[in-house]
Amino acid sequence: MVRHNLLIMSDLVGSSEVRRLRRFANVYRSSELDKKTLADRLRQTDALLISSWPEILTDGTLRSMKRLRFIQGILVGVEHIPFQALARKVVVSSNAGAYSLEVGEHAFGLLLSAAKRVVDTHNSVARGKTDFKEFRGTSDDILVLRGKTLGVIGYGGIGAVVAGLGRSFGMNVIALSRSRRSASGSRGGGGLRFVRGRGALTSLLAGSDAVVLALPLTKLTEGMIGAKELSVAKGGAVLVNISRGDIVNQAALYEHLRRNPSFRYATDVWWYKEGRETLVTDYPFTSLPNFVGTPHISGPTAVASGRPVRMAVENTLRYLRGLRPKNVVKRSEYYRSIVL
Amino acid sequence: MVRHNLLIMSDLVGSSEVRRLRRFANVYRSSELDKKTLADRLRQTDALLISSWPEILTDGTLRSMKRLRFIQGILVGVEHIPFQALARKVVVSSNAGAYSLEVGEHAFGLLLSAAKRVVDTHNSVARGKTDFKEFRGTSDDILVLRGKTLGVIGYGGIGAVVAGLGRSFGMNVIALSRSRRSASGSRGGGGLRFVRGRGALTSLLAGSDAVVLALPLTKLTEGMIGAKELSVAKGGAVLVNISRGDIVNQAALYEHLRRNPSFRYATDVWWYKEGRETLVTDYPFTSLPNFVGTPHISGPTAVASGRPVRMAVENTLRYLRGLRPKNVVKRSEYYRSIVL
Repeated sequence: MVRHNLLIMSDLVGSSEVRRLRRFANVYRSSELDKKTLADRLRQTDALLISSWPEILTDGTLRSMKRLRFIQGILVGVEHIPFQALARKVVVSSNAGAYSLEVGEHAFGLLLSAAKRVVDTHNSVARGKTDFKEFRGTSDDILVLRGKTLGVIGYGGIGAVVAGLGRSFGMNVIALSRSRRSASGSRGGGGLRFVRGRGALTSLLAGSDAVVLALPLTKLTEGMIGAKELSVAKGGAVLVNISRGDIVNQAALYEHLRRNPSFRYATDVWWYKEGRETLVTDYPFTSLPNFVGTPHISGPTAVASGRPVRMAVENTLRYLRGLRPKNVVKRSEYYRSIVL
Repeated sequence: MVRHNLLIMSDLVGSSEVRRLRRFANVYRSSELDKKTLADRLRQTDALLISSWPEILTDGTLRSMKRLRFIQGILVGVEHIPFQALARKVVVSSNAGAYSLEVGEHAFGLLLSAAKRVVDTHNSVARGKTDFKEFRGTSDDILVLRGKTLGVIGYGGIGAVVAGLGRSFGMNVIALSRSRRSASGSRGGGGLRFVRGRGALTSLLAGSDAVVLALPLTKLTEGMIGAKELSVAKGGAVLVNISRGDIVNQAALYEHLRRNPSFRYATDVWWYKEGRETLVTDYPFTSLPNFVGTPHISGPTAVASGRPVRMAVENTLRYLRGLRPKNVVKRSEYYRSIVL
């Protein structure tokens, strides 16, 4: 077996993981190389293990990496990878599934926070609204989950966790998924229905009391929730985003929240600006009582568990040992030249 | 069968419920009687259907109600009833179980809001903390529920819902209950352990990552969570209160939250002052990032479902028809002369 050169460009990978990788490859860490050695090394690199995209890997540098065949990401999303500058033969693997537990739980934290109006009523009390009578009517907007319908858009690892928790709360779950799946993947059997194809998104939005976005940001999903989609959603629905901010059209969402105080948006992910996610939004979302936003903390919680690095290393080992890596992304669905 | 005189002293009971009750009793509504007629009627009343305690029912008035034998509450708690002024022969029934679904869900809303740091990070972003780097370290305090231990103190209807949801999140559940119960009451079998007796509270608190208080306020439970109990709890634990504020010692809690920023308290219920629950606290809890408080909105959500009134009417019908009413409270455990 050919011994590959693997370059690790992430501080998240610990020394025990490096030792495992060394059994099957020559392993280098960019943080331990001076600039000139790194430049030489890059030209000899067969495989890359990265978390966020290394700034040093400009399009020009990438073009000089003639031996590059494999990129393994530690993050779950790969939309930050400049696919247009990668040679066709480069295979990219995401880290799908590594974050499912933590991000799925966080999705339910956001969903329940918004459904039970925790943030806005807490803040009202904190601001001095201390007469119970002033909260009469609040219960009209409290969403009881049992018996209601949860729409899950994207049924990967995170979507499956979210759907399972929804079933536990006694919700009927509709999952929108590109790939046909049997209901055998669901917990508890029954109460989980898959939809796909034309009209599926509209019917899911129209029929759901809560909707969780759990799909990657690609050419196909960017802006998929716009004014038209929001207009068919139920008036008192809760929309949760734990995938990527840009799945939702920012201007359309702000207008919809402003006009429909019973509709709620709860998110852990924020919109991109100049290629980077930022907490600075184009509209004053945090001034709205029907907006809840946490600063992208679900992913780091998963990273802290060590699982994402372990899973990325496992998959890199598959590649290094000549096996087919898992989670290979469809490059044609991603782009970098236009946005991000 | 003797036809009882039932007086309804709550606006929550609708006309269809009144019609059902009229089949078995002479039914009067205090809101439809003038002062003098009401005074006469009270002396002839055998049974009362109430929600919050009617101010007109002073100790003196109660003593004049020689025929009174039964009081049915629509609220789940009965600690507002002046037991010391009631003749021994008066049976009081709570509305246990009527609020379990909504209050149990709300408990999980509070638990996840605190576990995932939704409120404090949302507010930090809203106040202009818009650099993701400033939130590094946040994940250290994010509690992932799967595999952790949930302590449920009080295993009535609400406690059972909370325990079931805990199991759904993959938590090991310890339930403190006075009555011995088999694990057959648990969902999914296994993962639920009952504890009781001396030392059970301490060991539950010491071993739990999240604790939910789900027990009535009685002589036995008032102030049961004080400085000593808080001191044995895990440093990063989340304590959720959806029963009554006075289960927890207010001063001890404030001090504990101030000294232990990773410990969190999330509540829907507030302390009594001069016999009434109030959102005005003795300490500035809402200034602490590790305090989350909603203004007692879980109960009204249940009331809005109509179930509490239906269940209270069902139980009243049992009494009127000569059957033994359910949820008869142990009067000796309640007091009014000392506090509230």
